[in-house]
Amino acid sequence: MKRRDFLTSGAIAGSAMAASSAILNPITASAANAASFPGDQRAKAKLRMCSQLGVIPGGKPEDKLKWMKSHGFEAVEIGGQGNDYLDWKKRADDAGLAIASLCIGSFGNKLTDEDPEKRKQGFDELKVQLERAGALGANGVVYVPATGRPDRPNWRIRELTVAMLKELGPFAAEHKTHIILEPLRRGEAWFLRQVSDAAQICKDAGVQGVAVLGDTYHMYTEETDDFAAFVAGGEYVKHVHLGNGTKRQLPGQDNHSFVKTMRGLKYIGYVNFIGYECGVNGDREIEVPKSVEYLRKCWEEA
Amino acid sequence: MKRRDFLTSGAIAGSAMAASSAILNPITASAANAASFPGDQRAKAKLRMCSQLGVIPGGKPEDKLKWMKSHGFEAVEIGGQGNDYLDWKKRADDAGLAIASLCIGSFGNKLTDEDPEKRKQGFDELKVQLERAGALGANGVVYVPATGRPDRPNWRIRELTVAMLKELGPFAAEHKTHIILEPLRRGEAWFLRQVSDAAQICKDAGVQGVAVLGDTYHMYTEETDDFAAFVAGGEYVKHVHLGNGTKRQLPGQDNHSFVKTMRGLKYIGYVNFIGYECGVNGDREIEVPKSVEYLRKCWEEA
Repeated sequence: MKRRDFLTSGAIAGSAMAASSAILNPITASAANAASFPGDQRAKAKLRMCSQLGVIPGGKPEDKLKWMKSHGFEAVEIGGQGNDYLDWKKRADDAGLAIASLCIGSFGNKLTDEDPEKRKQGFDELKVQLERAGALGANGVVYVPATGRPDRPNWRIRELTVAMLKELGPFAAEHKTHIILEPLRRGEAWFLRQVSDAAQICKDAGVQGVAVLGDTYHMYTEETDDFAAFVAGGEYVKHVHLGNGTKRQLPGQDNHSFVKTMRGLKYIGYVNFIGYECGVNGDREIEVPKSVEYLRKCWEEA
Repeated sequence: MKRRDFLTSGAIAGSAMAASSAILNPITASAANAASFPGDQRAKAKLRMCSQLGVIPGGKPEDKLKWMKSHGFEAVEIGGQGNDYLDWKKRADDAGLAIASLCIGSFGNKLTDEDPEKRKQGFDELKVQLERAGALGANGVVYVPATGRPDRPNWRIRELTVAMLKELGPFAAEHKTHIILEPLRRGEAWFLRQVSDAAQICKDAGVQGVAVLGDTYHMYTEETDDFAAFVAGGEYVKHVHLGNGTKRQLPGQDNHSFVKTMRGLKYIGYVNFIGYECGVNGDREIEVPKSVEYLRKCWEEA
């Protein structure tokens, strides 16, 4: 184990999570031993919190962003953007936060539609969002290729998805951002449910600018092992959504353990953001810091 | 690390692979350190070779089985069986080998057909093979739910597959054997391509007697990471097919590394058989022992 490297990454995570004192001594016995497992890149991994604003206490976005900064968050995840997108750049800059990503949905499944005109329309819409993501310094747009229970075979939707990525991935890369494929639970999207599948789609596309996301709420029912899922995702993992498995509330608010989640992220040397996309059971002002503390403990234990 | 446990498992693997002397000292620095990684069950993992007969030198099955025994193999994989299936029990017993599994294919995709009559026929055929597998002491029948490029949506074939497993898994368990789902390359089967997907199907079925297989030839194009794939498979992994990724020949005959394969199997504490299902480039008498030696080195390095 390169202890110096591990301490360095621990120190960086520590500065992000300054609210906690335990982070000053992050090396547990298991973590120290684990660092020598073949392929394990935990020495460079960092725990960097972000969130969508719904989870955060406060009224105006400016107040929420200020609260986030003072509670150790580093970035905010926003939605699809209109012409006033640069307002977010100012808001985030003023608060001292980065913009992690734009969570944009599926554009009504247009990009995988059988109608070439609709696909073209979807491509154009995604391009606009990628340009805006780039201008905002965001790592990507979180995108779902096809929602619902399709009446077409999987291979056909996949073919259209790979073709789309081949064309738009390089466009995303030019704008220093990514198209981030999000696998969902079957109730929301049958086409793409597992991180390993999303990663293989990126591999098939074989271009820059394509990435995957693991959403712990969806993974809870669709993956057999969160550690394995993130290892399969590997370098393609550019964002993580956090929600617990049973109620899609804050991690730590049910019995869903996030240790394997964190072990997977550490193993792949994850340095991008992990961000809340979930509800809150109780008072946000109290519950959100508790959840961050819970995640930090899981990170250390992993 | 419990070194005693590791030595024990090494010794057992050693007795199986008596042709090699290096196995007497199997602990490498990386393996010893790796044993303490969270969740790693390598202390109980064993390398146990089997093969289909096509790979093995010799003419008559009896001669091939004898050759296998004298070259450190522990078991043989056979095909779907007719009424004379007990002949295989005698042949294997005479050679001192176990029967690992029956590789039976898809039964023309009958078990996932939309016609209930055809499904019933498929169920009956699979039941017969499961009974015979049980009588032969085999760990399972290797089965493909749907081959080719389906014209139906994935969720529908999956629904029929899970329903089939719910009914026949317990039947398999009664006969002390398993239905082992085999993911294939997209050219052979679009429905099921990844080990993680097969494992999740088993999880959804939620019954005894269901399992998955990883075939390294198919995994080469369909998985981003063989280690992750086997970890996702976890306890569901009951058999492994071996073939290299570029030509489906013996492992070691191309540049496809099997270290991650072995790392995954060690991590999940794999104790079932791994068996050749591939071609051979060159003289079987020389090349098969070389490949076994190559796999053993990968196992040690993993």
